[in-house]
Amino acid sequence: MLEKYKAVRARTEALCEPLKIEDYIPQPVDFASPPKWHLAHTTWFFEEMILAKYDAQYQRFHPDFAYLFNSYYNTIGERTLRADRGNISRPTVMEVYAYRVHVDHAMGTLLEVEKDNLALLELVELGLNHEQQHQELLITDLKYTLGHNPLFPVYKPDFDLTRQSDQKTDFISINEGIYEIGHNDNAFAFDNEKNRHKTYIQNFSIKNALVTNGEFMEFMADGGYNTFNLWLDEGWSWVKSADVKSPLYWHFIDGKWFIYTLSGLREVNPNELLCHISYYEAMAFATWKSMRLPTEFEWEVASNQIEWGSRWEWTNSAYLAYPGFKVASGAVGEYNGKFMINQMVLRGASSATAKHHSRSTYRNFFHPQMQWQFSGIRLVK
Amino acid sequence: MLEKYKAVRARTEALCEPLKIEDYIPQPVDFASPPKWHLAHTTWFFEEMILAKYDAQYQRFHPDFAYLFNSYYNTIGERTLRADRGNISRPTVMEVYAYRVHVDHAMGTLLEVEKDNLALLELVELGLNHEQQHQELLITDLKYTLGHNPLFPVYKPDFDLTRQSDQKTDFISINEGIYEIGHNDNAFAFDNEKNRHKTYIQNFSIKNALVTNGEFMEFMADGGYNTFNLWLDEGWSWVKSADVKSPLYWHFIDGKWFIYTLSGLREVNPNELLCHISYYEAMAFATWKSMRLPTEFEWEVASNQIEWGSRWEWTNSAYLAYPGFKVASGAVGEYNGKFMINQMVLRGASSATAKHHSRSTYRNFFHPQMQWQFSGIRLVK
Amino acid sequence: MLEKYKAVRARTEALCEPLKIEDYIPQPVDFASPPKWHLAHTTWFFEEMILAKYDAQYQRFHPDFAYLFNSYYNTIGERTLRADRGNISRPTVMEVYAYRVHVDHAMGTLLEVEKDNLALLELVELGLNHEQQHQELLITDLKYTLGHNPLFPVYKPDFDLTRQSDQKTDFISINEGIYEIGHNDNAFAFDNEKNRHKTYIQNFSIKNALVTNGEFMEFMADGGYNTFNLWLDEGWSWVKSADVKSPLYWHFIDGKWFIYTLSGLREVNPNELLCHISYYEAMAFATWKSMRLPTEFEWEVASNQIEWGSRWEWTNSAYLAYPGFKVASGAVGEYNGKFMINQMVLRGASSATAKHHSRSTYRNFFHPQMQWQFSGIRLVK
Amino acid sequence: MLEKYKAVRARTEALCEPLKIEDYIPQPVDFASPPKWHLAHTTWFFEEMILAKYDAQYQRFHPDFAYLFNSYYNTIGERTLRADRGNISRPTVMEVYAYRVHVDHAMGTLLEVEKDNLALLELVELGLNHEQQHQELLITDLKYTLGHNPLFPVYKPDFDLTRQSDQKTDFISINEGIYEIGHNDNAFAFDNEKNRHKTYIQNFSIKNALVTNGEFMEFMADGGYNTFNLWLDEGWSWVKSADVKSPLYWHFIDGKWFIYTLSGLREVNPNELLCHISYYEAMAFATWKSMRLPTEFEWEVASNQIEWGSRWEWTNSAYLAYPGFKVASGAVGEYNGKFMINQMVLRGASSATAKHHSRSTYRNFFHPQMQWQFSGIRLVK
Repeated sequence: MLEKYKAVRARTEALCEPLKIEDYIPQPVDFASPPKWHLAHTTWFFEEMILAKYDAQYQRFHPDFAYLFNSYYNTIGERTLRADRGNISRPTVMEVYAYRVHVDHAMGTLLEVEKDNLALLELVELGLNHEQQHQELLITDLKYTLGHNPLFPVYKPDFDLTRQSDQKTDFISINEGIYEIGHNDNAFAFDNEKNRHKTYIQNFSIKNALVTNGEFMEFMADGGYNTFNLWLDEGWSWVKSADVKSPLYWHFIDGKWFIYTLSGLREVNPNELLCHISYYEAMAFATWKSMRLPTEFEWEVASNQIEWGSRWEWTNSAYLAYPGFKVASGAVGEYNGKFMINQMVLRGASSATAKHHSRSTYRNFFHPQMQWQFSGIRLVK
Repeated sequence: MLEKYKAVRARTEALCEPLKIEDYIPQPVDFASPPKWHLAHTTWFFEEMILAKYDAQYQRFHPDFAYLFNSYYNTIGERTLRADRGNISRPTVMEVYAYRVHVDHAMGTLLEVEKDNLALLELVELGLNHEQQHQELLITDLKYTLGHNPLFPVYKPDFDLTRQSDQKTDFISINEGIYEIGHNDNAFAFDNEKNRHKTYIQNFSIKNALVTNGEFMEFMADGGYNTFNLWLDEGWSWVKSADVKSPLYWHFIDGKWFIYTLSGLREVNPNELLCHISYYEAMAFATWKSMRLPTEFEWEVASNQIEWGSRWEWTNSAYLAYPGFKVASGAVGEYNGKFMINQMVLRGASSATAKHHSRSTYRNFFHPQMQWQFSGIRLVK
Repeated sequence: MLEKYKAVRARTEALCEPLKIEDYIPQPVDFASPPKWHLAHTTWFFEEMILAKYDAQYQRFHPDFAYLFNSYYNTIGERTLRADRGNISRPTVMEVYAYRVHVDHAMGTLLEVEKDNLALLELVELGLNHEQQHQELLITDLKYTLGHNPLFPVYKPDFDLTRQSDQKTDFISINEGIYEIGHNDNAFAFDNEKNRHKTYIQNFSIKNALVTNGEFMEFMADGGYNTFNLWLDEGWSWVKSADVKSPLYWHFIDGKWFIYTLSGLREVNPNELLCHISYYEAMAFATWKSMRLPTEFEWEVASNQIEWGSRWEWTNSAYLAYPGFKVASGAVGEYNGKFMINQMVLRGASSATAKHHSRSTYRNFFHPQMQWQFSGIRLVK
Repeated sequence: MLEKYKAVRARTEALCEPLKIEDYIPQPVDFASPPKWHLAHTTWFFEEMILAKYDAQYQRFHPDFAYLFNSYYNTIGERTLRADRGNISRPTVMEVYAYRVHVDHAMGTLLEVEKDNLALLELVELGLNHEQQHQELLITDLKYTLGHNPLFPVYKPDFDLTRQSDQKTDFISINEGIYEIGHNDNAFAFDNEKNRHKTYIQNFSIKNALVTNGEFMEFMADGGYNTFNLWLDEGWSWVKSADVKSPLYWHFIDGKWFIYTLSGLREVNPNELLCHISYYEAMAFATWKSMRLPTEFEWEVASNQIEWGSRWEWTNSAYLAYPGFKVASGAVGEYNGKFMINQMVLRGASSATAKHHSRSTYRNFFHPQMQWQFSGIRLVK
């Protein structure tokens, strides 16, 4: 576990390696946190959830960090307003790295002493999965900051999360019947994907390939963003009020569509997998194609027959509890259950996801207007 | 069908009988429309959806009403902003009644001439069910207006939609297995409840009785509104930002809880069925009870074994399409499908629902913060 | 005084004579109150400020009206939120008229008994001037409601507040020197215009004629609404965010400008006096003309040499206290002084002003974005 | 002039010397810009207003900076939204310093070549006064960022802008009569203070000493923030909606008032000059004292008899044009005139003002709710 701990923690820092100090600070929108905050908050998790409880000798690095770097855990006490994370110039980035060293040192010792403490190891596993989630968010949020800078700064010239589509474009048929859904082996999984249970699935055919930029440009060329009856009512309001005309990070310059990537601005490649679209756009596109999105259950049933892992895929399932779902007691119980309203499930993983972090039962979830995630579309008919 | 037409139309007007002219006008919040608007909009449906298409001789009552009384049908053209319905003093109430007479007259003639035109009769059936929905909304919206007037005006002294609970309080057990869900006989049903299909249900026990005021007062007395971990995250934000301390229409006066009803203000009766609560409150209450809400599928499976019809009942199901759901073409297609996001399903009917309007497959839906409907709670364990 | 009381009160009711019951109710924006409210609030003034204090026998008409019809007097206690005045269907219009009768009866008796009570008579005078102010507001607010109704209802076919310009277009020169400003005779005046005092005025020339629609159409044709450097910075933001393209009530239909008036919609007459413009528009127009607006002191000095009384005229003076201004104690002290921030002074009177209500020292004041008043432009060079 | 140029430019950088890179980035509210932006924008002024026009050989440092660092000059073209200044991590702080070096080098050459070009020298003088204004804003804005950080970081341990009051507390009487107001010698002045002109002043007495923390604490102890009739109406709304209970940067901790300063958090010293109050608070305090604020004309007349220079002093004058004020053509014309609405004049200077930057005719101006400036109160009776 200590090896895994070190590897995950090191990857977070590796992701920050190309950053300038200035890049660690801004928070251009409420939902996108600064890199400094991600570095500190993932560390806070180990300090507050583990060291403060399992290590009687442990000295907190700084008395105010429990408050400063709490995200949403009401159980732990007060927290900085989410929208204020970008206003906090101190502690400096250097001090946050020192905080990481301090906690890593204590965790190293603790993990050697308590290497058979299963409850502790389970929490560490949770903490590492939590940190992997924040690795993905760190990339996603950073892209938002750099992608909204008029200079379109390059994060890393060779850091490319786009993907050429080389997927077969056939539809795979699944027969109706009873299927089991949810996680049930011994490996780590979040509480929201547990409680494996039966569900009844109707016949359906699911496409192996994800939608490409080229296919979406056809939708745009056909007036997709101007045709109200392709859209959910709240989707149409969103298009109008936010003046949406393309996926996020697309720019129409001198008669051509360009796309901002973490390796810079470049012309849209029609053969690449579509990315950064909202649920509203996914639904409108599927309606335009006279198809639909899969439910999360259909997706999971089909998951061993389709190619996935490059884009989080919007499903037509709301994020709700599985049968028998129980909220854990204490702060850990605030992890997943309390967000089960007004969000749609995404399945799969993306090219920004940490390796081995996702699995076919993994349930990601976002509000339907969110475009900033590496999200794509898979169709069902 | 003409008899039915007359009966439904007459009931709308009967509901308005106790109103003063002044009561027809105000719109205190965006989601609550004025009685005048309900009277006109239900008439507009027959004029635009039926007379304008099936009656070549038909003369519209007023050239601007197609615009003025369109609700949300983009297909029909422009419409008054929803929030401006209460700002329109003209046409007068009298003119709106004249509009109804004009349309009813034309509909009477048309229904005699075209009495075998099945497509037409289907649209009339839809129009009447639409009007019945607006009858319920008229009562619900009117209660909002009168209930927010500091004088607490009485709508009708003997109009009482509260219900003493005389329901058995046992739990009914349902065995796991495959069940069929959705409407499939020849009677009228909305598109969103059609496509009867199999679903797999786990074992569950559902309470015959709905939650009472008295039970909810225990939740309040136990600090329910102040205990964050009973609430969904967005529910807790709602409680804080809207400063919610009770169900809608409850007032704490001189140390006692009072409740506004359409027959006036009176002390809360603990034995009455709880009413006017949001999904957030329903979820928090269920969590406090260590139980949960039924899914809409569980509810439908149990519906012939439980007593229902006094309160719309929040379920733990998001409002989404059934397998095989297809949006109809034209304006009628805007009826249901485009609202399938960010809303939760309610099942049953309420004491404000028109007789025979609901059925066990009926799917009502509202945003989770809405309290103004005659909504209640049924528990599952 | 009783005669004057009766005459003023009767005029308010005469203004309402053409209204339908429905017209008494809506409040389309926060700043425009419904006619019912004006009728009741002016009555409330006499009940709370006079009868409740000077008539020991007086019985209030209704115990909740002190709360319902208080406008902004914190001294009197709580009040209905200003934005909720249009949501109150009860009391009915009939009941409000009965309220007027009740108070008028008591006032009639009191004025006979106390006909030598100077403090009382002074308050009555204030109450009548207050009612005259609300007569103007009643017309102004009603025009806003009817003018935003897509049917453009006619208030009264022969009620025409537009004015053909027959004014001489010469400039009148005033010499620099010390002048006295403010009210100082024995007739009634508001506290904000008292304390006559010396001020030093520089040479200036003021135009006898007000700006016409035709002159303003030249400004529009010259791109006035699209030329940022004609505008104050906040004015330019207002033009952009509110998408202002003309004075209020102007509509561009089939290539021509129309104007809504209380006698209906009609084509803009270039020879009529410009009306319904904001301070921002007045300033931009003056800048475009390479002239400026007068200060309120210049206006007052010139007032006996210019023709005025058809439009309230924006001045380039902020609404602030005169030297020696003192706020009266009690509720009456809330009348004027507390609004002395962020408002600009208008001088003159308009065709909607009650006869003999205004005078050359009268100070009207509004926020700079307000267009709904019968406001116009006079230029100085 | 070159010496002066170097001195002013060097002072800006000296003010930034204690900053960490992180401190250059955040913008916690719209009106407070990041240090990086102040450094770049003051440089932009010289690049766009001077070098681009007077130096044919000049090569811009970066093609996008004209857009990135424009503040509000519509004449120059588009600009970054004011609220987005804190979201721009690039260019880095280092690059901005390189920008300064680049421009300073070109300015050095230009000033030697064109040392007799009076129009140019006038613009340089304006640019340097502009930079001095931004020096003050840099300090003011930085204090806002650090002062809202829960860690209360120290800017510089010995940087103390508080001031013990050692001023005589007598009132100085000024006789009524004609006085001249405005700037009229050859030294630099802004356009808004020019056009020296006569004004008539009434008798008044002005206090030599500014209000202290101790005096304001008496106001607070007397319930000043809870007494509506001490406040302007919009001031009272501000107190309620922003929940104001003290001047900015005051914190009530364990029963005592503390104050954040740039040298850290410390207990309030009653003998220090009050600071960081809004116009609303200044007016309420004066009303509570039964006194008033001076007009800007009274202040200027008395300026050679009172001690001033530690606090910008709110006056009871709105920021409006002097007689004969003309807006200059081109971008320079956007400097002052377009802000002449909804702002109040402050006179004097503060302990954060650059030496020799202010003068007795200087007119500063802010919206009445602003507390973040080093503002204080002087009373008149």
